[in-house]
Amino acid sequence: MDRSIGGLEAAGEWHVLRSLIPELRDKNVLDLGCGYGWHCRYAREQQARSVVGIDLSEKMISRAKEYNDDSAIDYRQLAIEDIDFGAGEFDVAISSLALHYVERFDIVCRKIYHCLSPGGSFVLSVEHPIFTALAAQDWYYGSQGERLHWPVDDYQIEGQRMTRFLDHGVVKYHRTIATLVNALIESGFMITKLSEPQPTQEILAKHPEMRDETRRPIFLLIAAVKG
Amino acid sequence: MDRSIGGLEAAGEWHVLRSLIPELRDKNVLDLGCGYGWHCRYAREQQARSVVGIDLSEKMISRAKEYNDDSAIDYRQLAIEDIDFGAGEFDVAISSLALHYVERFDIVCRKIYHCLSPGGSFVLSVEHPIFTALAAQDWYYGSQGERLHWPVDDYQIEGQRMTRFLDHGVVKYHRTIATLVNALIESGFMITKLSEPQPTQEILAKHPEMRDETRRPIFLLIAAVKG
Repeated sequence: MDRSIGGLEAAGEWHVLRSLIPELRDKNVLDLGCGYGWHCRYAREQQARSVVGIDLSEKMISRAKEYNDDSAIDYRQLAIEDIDFGAGEFDVAISSLALHYVERFDIVCRKIYHCLSPGGSFVLSVEHPIFTALAAQDWYYGSQGERLHWPVDDYQIEGQRMTRFLDHGVVKYHRTIATLVNALIESGFMITKLSEPQPTQEILAKHPEMRDETRRPIFLLIAAVKG
Repeated sequence: MDRSIGGLEAAGEWHVLRSLIPELRDKNVLDLGCGYGWHCRYAREQQARSVVGIDLSEKMISRAKEYNDDSAIDYRQLAIEDIDFGAGEFDVAISSLALHYVERFDIVCRKIYHCLSPGGSFVLSVEHPIFTALAAQDWYYGSQGERLHWPVDDYQIEGQRMTRFLDHGVVKYHRTIATLVNALIESGFMITKLSEPQPTQEILAKHPEMRDETRRPIFLLIAAVKG
């Protein structure tokens, strides 16, 4: 789970991510970057047989065990890049707003392809390449402090972005849309859907400040299957 | 072919488009929005058996017949939306910078799927959704006239954009990346590659002004096959 996105945006992303996940009943599920374990718990609510949740953060893994304890969920403190599961161990892999922290998306795609069963699904979300291109990750403001537009620059220059969150630096990796999609295809995945979520009319009615979320894409979600 | 992009950018787009097109020897090729017929001629140079080139512009079709005359190329003045070819008539469909002028991309995808043979290819390029989001289609400039960044706004608001080219208005249709890719998938296509071209080092060395083309994506190319 991302640590620098507002709650409402994250709620919208969860809603869309879950709409892309196939039926989970009796499935073995892998959650890459599980954070506090909310998606792991959701998978079990959907009758998943077993769930492995991994996250680099010791604090998050220990909180996940506390908040979403379940003997069928195996939480492990591990970097996404370091997964080393056997062939076909999982039916579904999910990753919510974690892979833009990972330097080698291509390697991760190959590892996930390996550990999925034939026909298995990989559903992921990342901060949108339009959102990660500039490290500032902020609107361009007018003289009255109004949001004029979303600035894009250095789009084709992939790699590290030193972003700020609260009072500390956070390294993210910017990749183009083509790089993300092609890495999945080159690993053997078939793309089944893309999503660039925006607030529903219902959300906009309740939270007019979410109007700006129609102005630029903030997340990119990709659903893919192992052919 | 687009009428509002500079020659160098267009040359780069052609180069990448052609790299995505499969072997054309003995193939029946359809070129949607053929303009002056340069891609039709290229297909014949690659030993395509037959080529149908369509374009809405009477002037372009008549110039195409003049510049790239060939008895195996059939030029027709026709809107892309109005194609009505039989099932499996073509092996390869290409469309270079034309489909952002078409209102119903979804219908066109279904029609192209229908007229391709099994395993047939569809390779298309459009102005990038980041480029079409704002009708101004221009950089955001600083007080010294310098290009500060590329402004994005109204990304999620799909539909008509009244753009200017020389002294007349041109209607384009903005669609999100997800809409473009999902329309192809929903028509039955399998996505095989995306490309967001940028100038090569060689081009940058010769034409330093092309440096700005690394700052935001200008074109989106998609290669897909009929599964």
